[in-house]
Amino acid sequence: MSSGGPGPVVGVDLGGTKILTRSIDPATGRAEGRVKAKTPAGPDAVLDTIVETVIGLDDWQAARAVGVGVPGFVDRNGVVDRCPNIAGWDHPVPVADTLAKRLGKPVVVANDVNCGAVAEHRVGSGRGVDDLLAVFVGTGVGGGLILDGNLIVGPRGKAAEIGHVTVVPGGRPCGCGGEGHLEAYAGRAGIDGEVRRRVAAGGTELLDELAGSGPIKSRHLAAAIEADDPTVRELLDEAADSLALVIGNAAALLDLSLVVLGGGVVDKLGEPFLDAIRASDHTGGFGRGAVEVVPAHRLDDGGAVGAAILASDRLSAGPG
Amino acid sequence: MSSGGPGPVVGVDLGGTKILTRSIDPATGRAEGRVKAKTPAGPDAVLDTIVETVIGLDDWQAARAVGVGVPGFVDRNGVVDRCPNIAGWDHPVPVADTLAKRLGKPVVVANDVNCGAVAEHRVGSGRGVDDLLAVFVGTGVGGGLILDGNLIVGPRGKAAEIGHVTVVPGGRPCGCGGEGHLEAYAGRAGIDGEVRRRVAAGGTELLDELAGSGPIKSRHLAAAIEADDPTVRELLDEAADSLALVIGNAAALLDLSLVVLGGGVVDKLGEPFLDAIRASDHTGGFGRGAVEVVPAHRLDDGGAVGAAILASDRLSAGPG
Repeated sequence: MSSGGPGPVVGVDLGGTKILTRSIDPATGRAEGRVKAKTPAGPDAVLDTIVETVIGLDDWQAARAVGVGVPGFVDRNGVVDRCPNIAGWDHPVPVADTLAKRLGKPVVVANDVNCGAVAEHRVGSGRGVDDLLAVFVGTGVGGGLILDGNLIVGPRGKAAEIGHVTVVPGGRPCGCGGEGHLEAYAGRAGIDGEVRRRVAAGGTELLDELAGSGPIKSRHLAAAIEADDPTVRELLDEAADSLALVIGNAAALLDLSLVVLGGGVVDKLGEPFLDAIRASDHTGGFGRGAVEVVPAHRLDDGGAVGAAILASDRLSAGPG
Repeated sequence: MSSGGPGPVVGVDLGGTKILTRSIDPATGRAEGRVKAKTPAGPDAVLDTIVETVIGLDDWQAARAVGVGVPGFVDRNGVVDRCPNIAGWDHPVPVADTLAKRLGKPVVVANDVNCGAVAEHRVGSGRGVDDLLAVFVGTGVGGGLILDGNLIVGPRGKAAEIGHVTVVPGGRPCGCGGEGHLEAYAGRAGIDGEVRRRVAAGGTELLDELAGSGPIKSRHLAAAIEADDPTVRELLDEAADSLALVIGNAAALLDLSLVVLGGGVVDKLGEPFLDAIRASDHTGGFGRGAVEVVPAHRLDDGGAVGAAILASDRLSAGPG
């Protein structure tokens, strides 16, 4: 768990629209140099662009390693299965091996949400705690799991896919094709879908007005709560209950006492939403109060920072 | 993960009524020498008796280490918090350190259900699979979790307490004081309580007759199913649905593809019960068929075998 010696580590955050590459001190999480690029279509072009951003950093040759966070499932060998948000990336690509050859440096690749969890664990709200779950609530719901100080990735890179834990068997449709998953109750897209179903069935139109014709954003939810819209209030109470149940159950299963909550929905709704989760009757597992729920530190470029920390850890651990 | 060199390892299974101590080859799980004793009251007398059983083995001086499975929570330092099934053990006891001093050998202590999971993983139904959950359904419901080949213990030794995952918020009372936990739906004591509530409310009396005035045993449940008792059928369907939901959700959270199911209820009800779990609509997580559910190997003395394997692993890993 040391930072593996002096010198910067490059952190790359590959997103659906942009690539952000930074030079990072993994011990502190402080980010220095910064290169941005648009995310092109297709994995080959994406890898080319990542290489360009890395060698665009002033101090890249001094970097000991490179960490890359990607919006897809990554196996234990750094192979990225597919990236649904990147055009043309529908097949497995050995990202770690390919970039390591081209850059001549050790490369570690991880899921971007997992990178965010590592950043919270090491230099954010989870600092000093060896076992925690980080949950990020935005359009969807993602997570990252740290046990005994180590990121849990899973054999297929799908660990901590907490958005697809079932809270209501046979419940609301989920974007993945399943039913009753956490994401359908707590994710912005799930809430959006339910609001529109209720508007179509003759319910409130406030949120529809607020959001206009586009997708509902976190600030629309916050404004609807401000205006005391009963439908949105009910849906957000359900979201809080669903999160409380899944968090409490994960804590019981994994002996966790800390959960870090972040993402756009949590950021915009703030402490009242966290309090609704903490006060929920749907505590799961060992009951209310057994798990501390704290807001994420909202690190700038947390994905890049977490990727760099993982790359630095791998150096310390040695080969294998 | 090697077996750490030649020579036997002692495995001790501390139960509420008896202590079983065996000389084990951790590579194969084969158990040779065997010493049994009654479990006395109080932790001091228990430790004395464990020492007597160990030195009662013919080859104990050749043993490289000693592993002990205990019916309580064990932290990462081998301190046992309390053992509800052993009279007078209501305070933390440093079992590993105390036994190591008295026996002059490395001692590893683990929860007995976790030891059973390790045995299934290394020499039972989970052999060759690095990530799995073992669930044992008896009076209660316990579990053991292996991730990337390692037993997950948790900071307070409470990991894989799957019996206390909530399946129905506000549902049936659980023995722990909580509500709607898996154990209340799938454990024999939970089913027993529900049968008696229904009998009191005027339901079927078959099971009450079968069980007489004593607690319901797994063979009573099997006989009631044989006789096609509708109440027991309904309760066991609920048990299967509850297990399916929790198993599916744990698999989604931890990227598992294998769950090993054992314990008295599973052993007596057999494949039809496993099939009910596999066919349940309450699949949790990524949906039906994503998780393979297999019966436990029902190893003789699995607790002692698993404890010995953990002790052997610790030797291989070296100090720390």
